Amino acid sequence: MNFSPRAVLIGLGLFVSAPFIDANEGMWLFNDPPRKILKEQYGFEPTDQWLEHVQKSSVRFNSGGSGSFVSPEGLVLSNHHVGADCLQKLGSADKNYLRDGFHARTRAEEMRCHDLELNVLMSIEDVTDRVKAAVKSDMNADRAFAARRAVMAEIEKESLDKTGLRSDVVTLFQGGKYHLYRYKKYTDVRLVFAPEQQAAFYGGDPDNFEYPRYDLDICFFRAYENGQPAKVEHFLTWSEKGPAENELVFVSGHPGGTSRSLTMDELEYMRDVSFPSSMEMLHRMEVMLSVYSARSEENARRAKDDLFGVQNSRKAREGGLAGLLDPQLMNKKRADEQKLKDALRASDKYQNALAAYDKIAAAQKVIRENRLPYNFLEAGRGFASEYFRIARTLLRAAEERSKPNGERLREFRESAQESLEFQLFSEEPLYDEFEQVKLADSLTYLTEKLGFTDPLVQKVLAGKSPRDRASELVLGTKVKSVEVRKQLYKEAPDFFRKSGDTMIQLALLLDEPARAVRKILEAQDEIKRQSYGEIAAARFAIQGSSTYPDATFTLRLAFGQAKGYEEDGKQIPFQTTFAGLYDRAAEHKNQPPFDLPPRWIHRKNSLDMSTPYNFVSTADIIGGNSGSPTLNKNGEFVGIIFDGNIYSLVLDFAYTDTKARALSVHSKSITEALLRVYEAPELVSELLGARSRIPLDR
Amino acid sequence: MNFSPRAVLIGLGLFVSAPFIDANEGMWLFNDPPRKILKEQYGFEPTDQWLEHVQKSSVRFNSGGSGSFVSPEGLVLSNHHVGADCLQKLGSADKNYLRDGFHARTRAEEMRCHDLELNVLMSIEDVTDRVKAAVKSDMNADRAFAARRAVMAEIEKESLDKTGLRSDVVTLFQGGKYHLYRYKKYTDVRLVFAPEQQAAFYGGDPDNFEYPRYDLDICFFRAYENGQPAKVEHFLTWSEKGPAENELVFVSGHPGGTSRSLTMDELEYMRDVSFPSSMEMLHRMEVMLSVYSARSEENARRAKDDLFGVQNSRKAREGGLAGLLDPQLMNKKRADEQKLKDALRASDKYQNALAAYDKIAAAQKVIRENRLPYNFLEAGRGFASEYFRIARTLLRAAEERSKPNGERLREFRESAQESLEFQLFSEEPLYDEFEQVKLADSLTYLTEKLGFTDPLVQKVLAGKSPRDRASELVLGTKVKSVEVRKQLYKEAPDFFRKSGDTMIQLALLLDEPARAVRKILEAQDEIKRQSYGEIAAARFAIQGSSTYPDATFTLRLAFGQAKGYEEDGKQIPFQTTFAGLYDRAAEHKNQPPFDLPPRWIHRKNSLDMSTPYNFVSTADIIGGNSGSPTLNKNGEFVGIIFDGNIYSLVLDFAYTDTKARALSVHSKSITEALLRVYEAPELVSELLGARSRIPLDR
Repeated sequence: MNFSPRAVLIGLGLFVSAPFIDANEGMWLFNDPPRKILKEQYGFEPTDQWLEHVQKSSVRFNSGGSGSFVSPEGLVLSNHHVGADCLQKLGSADKNYLRDGFHARTRAEEMRCHDLELNVLMSIEDVTDRVKAAVKSDMNADRAFAARRAVMAEIEKESLDKTGLRSDVVTLFQGGKYHLYRYKKYTDVRLVFAPEQQAAFYGGDPDNFEYPRYDLDICFFRAYENGQPAKVEHFLTWSEKGPAENELVFVSGHPGGTSRSLTMDELEYMRDVSFPSSMEMLHRMEVMLSVYSARSEENARRAKDDLFGVQNSRKAREGGLAGLLDPQLMNKKRADEQKLKDALRASDKYQNALAAYDKIAAAQKVIRENRLPYNFLEAGRGFASEYFRIARTLLRAAEERSKPNGERLREFRESAQESLEFQLFSEEPLYDEFEQVKLADSLTYLTEKLGFTDPLVQKVLAGKSPRDRASELVLGTKVKSVEVRKQLYKEAPDFFRKSGDTMIQLALLLDEPARAVRKILEAQDEIKRQSYGEIAAARFAIQGSSTYPDATFTLRLAFGQAKGYEEDGKQIPFQTTFAGLYDRAAEHKNQPPFDLPPRWIHRKNSLDMSTPYNFVSTADIIGGNSGSPTLNKNGEFVGIIFDGNIYSLVLDFAYTDTKARALSVHSKSITEALLRVYEAPELVSELLGARSRIPLDR
Repeated sequence: MNFSPRAVLIGLGLFVSAPFIDANEGMWLFNDPPRKILKEQYGFEPTDQWLEHVQKSSVRFNSGGSGSFVSPEGLVLSNHHVGADCLQKLGSADKNYLRDGFHARTRAEEMRCHDLELNVLMSIEDVTDRVKAAVKSDMNADRAFAARRAVMAEIEKESLDKTGLRSDVVTLFQGGKYHLYRYKKYTDVRLVFAPEQQAAFYGGDPDNFEYPRYDLDICFFRAYENGQPAKVEHFLTWSEKGPAENELVFVSGHPGGTSRSLTMDELEYMRDVSFPSSMEMLHRMEVMLSVYSARSEENARRAKDDLFGVQNSRKAREGGLAGLLDPQLMNKKRADEQKLKDALRASDKYQNALAAYDKIAAAQKVIRENRLPYNFLEAGRGFASEYFRIARTLLRAAEERSKPNGERLREFRESAQESLEFQLFSEEPLYDEFEQVKLADSLTYLTEKLGFTDPLVQKVLAGKSPRDRASELVLGTKVKSVEVRKQLYKEAPDFFRKSGDTMIQLALLLDEPARAVRKILEAQDEIKRQSYGEIAAARFAIQGSSTYPDATFTLRLAFGQAKGYEEDGKQIPFQTTFAGLYDRAAEHKNQPPFDLPPRWIHRKNSLDMSTPYNFVSTADIIGGNSGSPTLNKNGEFVGIIFDGNIYSLVLDFAYTDTKARALSVHSKSITEALLRVYEAPELVSELLGARSRIPLDR
């Protein structure tokens, strides 16, 4: 489950194309699919209809995962761990849906998620020329960044006004490609079904990123429009057959971010600075959340989704760092870069591309110098409280609204306004005590990293210990009320300056220094964007441009074979069965986290033990692909991606299919479990539709 | 339980006397007890016989805790968490003594601990003049350090030869006091009884450092001599009555280290550098050990003692750091320092003492610059494997043996040889897989902190990833065999230089740079020692010398009252009862870590619910005091220290009795539980001795 929301939402920077494509490599654009490779390798030629159908059946979750429509009635299938955020927020001290699961037996029982937004990609338009034309070669980095931001906001606004669709300009390759993605948006999304977490995440952290596996990592939602289930034209038909061994499969989803085309200099920065720094933060958060959770069942419920996200990211980062510390992988990447540089040196026309490497290194140096204040002040590492996040959003919304659309911080552009408000006014329950614990810890962290004597830190602490100050800040704010938020959202900046609200005062105190350091980093990003553009353009000229860009949490098509692998001299089969689940529990004496949920113990005899449960394939996936449908050539649903094995964690930097595998839940295990374990025949009916009869009870 | 082995073994530096003594403040020397305070406050005048009796009944554990003799047959009582190291090492995949407890019903069943050494303080001799005379004023720091080390080793060797007792020169006050401590040593120590960890550490990490509490944190050992139970002259008689509210109690034990007399400059260094750095390491280790433990029951057993130690230290450090970040505490300390400095400035004769502050600051700067290589290369943070520790000890033993006693690294001096060999040849079981996991993580940490491109790091990694290199190192060493260690221990340095053993090669590679950075730090420590000496001498001249030195893991006498406190407007009673234990379990639905051990559920009805269980007192304690007897005025055993509450964690820096409390297990609860829950009448008999009859079964 490197595919969790958090793993995705922690973005890693900038991306550029990869030069040499391996057999099953690639997270391909839907408007530039790997037709040639598919034809040559598998004799398969996807039609435009096939591509459109798959594209429009695919769903993006704003909480950071993927999913698909699986019925004409707006039924959406994703992972339990993608749904975890909604499950946690709908829960209370009495109802622990995240742990115990949920089942709406009728439409009336379907529960609306507080702040879940689904996006369906409707069209892609190349706007490269217009974006490039806006940025003049004589502009400095600041001005170039402003010009680029302005033209992107303008294009998005025009598109929104014209089509009413969510419109995002996506930066690809950095090598000059900018595409406008238009999404249909669903904000009334209701929870339909989730199994117990112990079934979805069987084996817990120890089995996370491992294989063989036995997880029913699924969660059903339903998209609504105007209070009615959405009627969708495109949805996937269900194949209970699943894939045969070595069969070609596709994965359509939203890989969050990869770093395959970064310069060695930037990769080394990740190895030496950003990964260790993330790990340090994750270790700290994991301990803090574990300690908080151990105090009571209710604490554990409140912190569960956060804790899962942190543990998952920690394991993913550990795997990524292992890749960066692997001499074999890094030497190969170094050789590739050297080869390209040699080619660039061979001709005078590539001098700009060669110089770009130095520019990236110089920008990276500035980023390094400013990373601490950026991470702690702007990215919020020093102020881990939802209340602070809300207060800052309210303050900045007031400030940004008074500027022209193109000059605003990007998250406040007009085309993003609706989604922003949807989040800001979420009825998600928040807990003072939990907010205090998180904030006290992060204020201590801030003090450690920026230094106790730093004047801003002194102002933040206001003469108190971090613990006392956190308590004062949390208890003294009113932004915990959605009503108050709605009122404040209407106010002008002046109103905030006079506010006595503790969190708003804190947001005000930080606003200027945080914006200042953000500006420095945005200018460096602009320099890197232009430089990577130079390199990519030169690379296309030398190596050809028929390739895929690094992942950007936009829709991609991956493919591969359902196929096992060899590990320590042992052949790992491509799929597991229900029988394996019971064996694993027995092997661990049914002790947590290997204990079977009671339902699975009681219903054991009604299950066909040979039912395929999880399977692996060589498809090229990464965090964000969680919940992506796995499809056969007919575009039928045969499984759902929920994890990669431990060897897949280096896919961030380079594709390999020796041992790296994508993990799916098999379609058949889903219907079988729904029917026999969870007594949800109405869901099975809906999935199998008119084409299939529901199997009789044994 | 800030009183765990690990919290103690992580030493904190140098110590100097505190000027103003609070009511119940002080960790007093047995040869300079607070006679005046005790008489004035409590009308109590301890006789020399009283002091000698308490001193010789007290026991120090080399694993980092305290204890006492409680029978003439060498029966020793300490905490379960002090015994944890022995319990873990005696266990196996089949026998989990740490979790399940242990009970030897006969002497024959008592099990010898692998490497536990007990020390009993027999005498104290002031050797200040001789140590001071050896260090001439014209020596530079290096030479002064060497001269001091030499004279200390000489005194110790002479004493050992003369008395046969373990002889340690202890540095006190830095202000010129050096005392020779002579200990009787027991190395044949056998395990007699331990309850289940769930009874000893009820409430787990959430309740650690909290109060009210319900812990039976006890473990019985027996000291043997010549294969027979040791006949001891001094042991504590048992008082089942325990202390009345507000009664004067004493604690005789070995506080590990305090920092009450450090300069503000050094305290700020701790706040800004050493505490955050320790916390970072502890967070990392806690996650690593938790992840390893979650994989299987056997892993959990192997890692349990380490994990407990790390969690305990983490919580203790968190509390300490909160103290350093508390403006009230730090402002008071700053004012105290300012007051002393003002007094120093008032007379010409204190110019050296004033200058000492700057010298300490300058030394601290050098330490700061060298702390990373020191922590990672010399202190072993980068090589967290027992195999490495053993290999290095073997190599250095060979190197150091060829030098005169006074020139050796201090741990290799002749008087310490026996204890060193006892540890080195321990039969403690070690596990390749666990060693690999720990080493891979710490090699990664080393790479992050010293930098991937550091030439030494490159040599350490030898072209491999940290994971692969750790595996190669662990699998390629033979020092895992005690027989091999014994052979290698006889070899000369040359032999090691030719060795093909992976860990010995690693120890060789590191030896020179590690020794070099150690030398730099030892010189700074010498400068600080001299400087603190100047300050202390001046302080004694101004404020008088009737005080106690900072803790140094040597025997101290503390005192206070059995007394509750107020928290959030609520009065916390001074003692709990068995009834409270059952209430707390019910409150948490008997869920871990608040579940009752099965035995306590089954035997509930046979227990007197009003039996006092744990109690608090204002005695001045800190990590290392774990297992210390709590005594009444008659020198009778009324309880055993096992923890301090959360407010006691700042005692590292300053004494307070507002809310800070020491926690003891009540004597009555021990005999009651032994009799009714654990069916150990023979132990109760031995404890109550001839004076008392064993209560009849109800």
